[in-house]
Amino acid sequence: MIAQVSLARRAFAEFLATALLVAAVVGSGIAAQTLSPNDVGLQLLENTIATAGALFAIIVVFAPISGSHLNPVVTIVDCAIGRRSWSEAIAYIPAQVAGAIAGAIVANVMFDRAAIETSTKVREGSNIYFAEVVATFGLVLVIFLLVRTGRAMESVVVVPAAVAGYITAAYWFTSSTSFANPAVTIGRAFSDTFAGIAPASVPPFIIAQIIGAALALAAVVVLTTQAKEEVVSE
Amino acid sequence: MIAQVSLARRAFAEFLATALLVAAVVGSGIAAQTLSPNDVGLQLLENTIATAGALFAIIVVFAPISGSHLNPVVTIVDCAIGRRSWSEAIAYIPAQVAGAIAGAIVANVMFDRAAIETSTKVREGSNIYFAEVVATFGLVLVIFLLVRTGRAMESVVVVPAAVAGYITAAYWFTSSTSFANPAVTIGRAFSDTFAGIAPASVPPFIIAQIIGAALALAAVVVLTTQAKEEVVSE
Amino acid sequence: MIAQVSLARRAFAEFLATALLVAAVVGSGIAAQTLSPNDVGLQLLENTIATAGALFAIIVVFAPISGSHLNPVVTIVDCAIGRRSWSEAIAYIPAQVAGAIAGAIVANVMFDRAAIETSTKVREGSNIYFAEVVATFGLVLVIFLLVRTGRAMESVVVVPAAVAGYITAAYWFTSSTSFANPAVTIGRAFSDTFAGIAPASVPPFIIAQIIGAALALAAVVVLTTQAKEEVVSE
Amino acid sequence: MIAQVSLARRAFAEFLATALLVAAVVGSGIAAQTLSPNDVGLQLLENTIATAGALFAIIVVFAPISGSHLNPVVTIVDCAIGRRSWSEAIAYIPAQVAGAIAGAIVANVMFDRAAIETSTKVREGSNIYFAEVVATFGLVLVIFLLVRTGRAMESVVVVPAAVAGYITAAYWFTSSTSFANPAVTIGRAFSDTFAGIAPASVPPFIIAQIIGAALALAAVVVLTTQAKEEVVSE
Repeated sequence: MIAQVSLARRAFAEFLATALLVAAVVGSGIAAQTLSPNDVGLQLLENTIATAGALFAIIVVFAPISGSHLNPVVTIVDCAIGRRSWSEAIAYIPAQVAGAIAGAIVANVMFDRAAIETSTKVREGSNIYFAEVVATFGLVLVIFLLVRTGRAMESVVVVPAAVAGYITAAYWFTSSTSFANPAVTIGRAFSDTFAGIAPASVPPFIIAQIIGAALALAAVVVLTTQAKEEVVSE
Repeated sequence: MIAQVSLARRAFAEFLATALLVAAVVGSGIAAQTLSPNDVGLQLLENTIATAGALFAIIVVFAPISGSHLNPVVTIVDCAIGRRSWSEAIAYIPAQVAGAIAGAIVANVMFDRAAIETSTKVREGSNIYFAEVVATFGLVLVIFLLVRTGRAMESVVVVPAAVAGYITAAYWFTSSTSFANPAVTIGRAFSDTFAGIAPASVPPFIIAQIIGAALALAAVVVLTTQAKEEVVSE
Repeated sequence: MIAQVSLARRAFAEFLATALLVAAVVGSGIAAQTLSPNDVGLQLLENTIATAGALFAIIVVFAPISGSHLNPVVTIVDCAIGRRSWSEAIAYIPAQVAGAIAGAIVANVMFDRAAIETSTKVREGSNIYFAEVVATFGLVLVIFLLVRTGRAMESVVVVPAAVAGYITAAYWFTSSTSFANPAVTIGRAFSDTFAGIAPASVPPFIIAQIIGAALALAAVVVLTTQAKEEVVSE
Repeated sequence: MIAQVSLARRAFAEFLATALLVAAVVGSGIAAQTLSPNDVGLQLLENTIATAGALFAIIVVFAPISGSHLNPVVTIVDCAIGRRSWSEAIAYIPAQVAGAIAGAIVANVMFDRAAIETSTKVREGSNIYFAEVVATFGLVLVIFLLVRTGRAMESVVVVPAAVAGYITAAYWFTSSTSFANPAVTIGRAFSDTFAGIAPASVPPFIIAQIIGAALALAAVVVLTTQAKEEVVSE
């Protein structure tokens, strides 16, 4: 059993890690928008590269402390497959959401904006929601296939590099630019800048993310559960 | 011997992995074309970086399940050197082709296009076909030198990072932008966007890819087969 | 105890490593400004990618010799947590500062500028100083969480890759573009180019960096010191 | 002793590896120049990213066969420090030069240009030559510090990633764009495109490269040779 204090500390790690991630996503979006005003693609490329660098560093650094979830759907799937108790989710998820909001505030302040803003960037459309299902499906699939095949244990850089690589791609190949994370989605509603999302768009995004995570969990189970006859014959 | 069920599961992994790859290639091409309308080079750079991230993540994730071929010529060479039975190729290759088509459809839908399109992007010319021979030669050489020297076993990131690095380069240094994969080539015919290829260009591309793979197999054999006198003297 | 000669050699390594780093930061800034005159964001992207490549290579190469600090606040925190004696800091820090200045001079000469310039690029504002606190907090947190959790020892690429990833992000997500290093800050005052900083801005930047490092040290201690009841109960 | 046949095979590996590298450098330069006509910095960024990807893949793939030198000054330094016999240099260096020329020809043909061109791109000036000394100094320092400290043996990705990272930086931070390789310099004279170099500029570049390599060898010896008293006292 894990002690009370220790869980508090791990929740603090999730808070700090998610704050750094959202500060990186929002802050680099503001810088990109300001410095490359004439090409939205270039802005997204700059935002992508900054996000990938931050993800790699943050995941590798906090993994030995909290597991580096930074993401409620990752925490929930981790509980669903029995690797973590549901009581931990109750500590992790609020820490992630609070961290995400704190990260947006830090980014706003660094770039001399009002500390708390409300994004006006409406992100809607059934194709966008479908993209968000795909984005989260892919992210959860990547993480939990690595975990369930044991590959995540073979090198400490595998999960950070795979997640950074996947999100690099997903910022581009999904029309939603791949939020894929309910906590980060909430945090990004607090900055009216490049990476923002209007509050009205947050609920459908989170619903899409939950659907994507559930589908990924199903695919992971199908791909990694050995049928009895397989075990025998292989 | 590997059981029937297990092969079905591995073929499903190839389907899913190839679908994700083609969704990444096609989807990021659509985003790049839309967001950076004034510079085709910047579009290709964005497409390159997204593809590299996707390739790294997908290969590292599916390798413990199916071997992460995603590519009929890789499967065929794997059979040709005796690492896999030809009966597996019969399951893998249709799964890869179906996955590639499914990936293109997913990309089309995410970006609110008709689900199934026919590319009008003609890619022809003897120099283009020659480039495709070179592109596939390099890809197959990279993969199978790593496999045959045992280097692929030394770290789980070696093959994914080498393939991502190679394709990053090959998108640029070959005039065909390096398809280097018959399944992906077929899939990309189903989207009339940046990464598309007109159906008429598909057969010569596939022929070029087969030639490149055959040349690479020859080079791999020459470079990794120890002559008897070498074994004695070294 | 470490011999006198050996410390001199390690200090020389810090000199050389910091010189290479500042030559890379300043030199790539000059090239970016010259070659991409129409988009400051693109300049920063080029500067970022060059810096990340240099950081990875320099840190991995000099680590077995001097520990690859390249940064007085890293050296000071290393002494503060008892991993290094303060007498070493007395050798390392001047070597880092001298190396940083030498690197700026080398960059100036390579690009046919006066060897020694004084930057006129004023970087001021409380939000900028706050950003520099955040930037240094993150860098020191990344390095010393990896060190204190033992993760730094698990693969020789972890620290170089995490630092390069973090700085890639921090160049973008902080409004100060993340100097995060007093020696490099001083060195960058010697080139009146893209990466320069006016001498008047150097002291507040260094103060901000020291604050950020102190906060990171506190966070590292909180996150990695096991309370007695935790050790017992886990 | 290594058998005759084996040396021939390793020389063939050096030929093929250097050909792929130069095809990547020259080919990506042509594509960049064609696709991003309005920003030379963007062209260099594209060329940089393609080169880095190619370097990583080629070095990691050919290392178990020939050591992946691809570069006469690397071969010479390897002989100078006694890791390789000079008789091998006699086989490696011509293979590298021939490979470099072959790679330029392949790139020319892929982009539908005359197979053999003569570059008209004059690269001259004492600051450019000085930059080439710095570029080669850094490259040789990176490689041989990793080799002499034993770090190169700790993970198969260390040398490829460090070289790719260093060259990524050096393309930008040196005013010569870092050729740092006599064979590649000769090869690049055979394409009158972005990455080309006029024949008249080749000899001073090679002289600068030899000076840089010699300085690096001196630095490596200073940094890695334990003085007697150090061994005793540590």
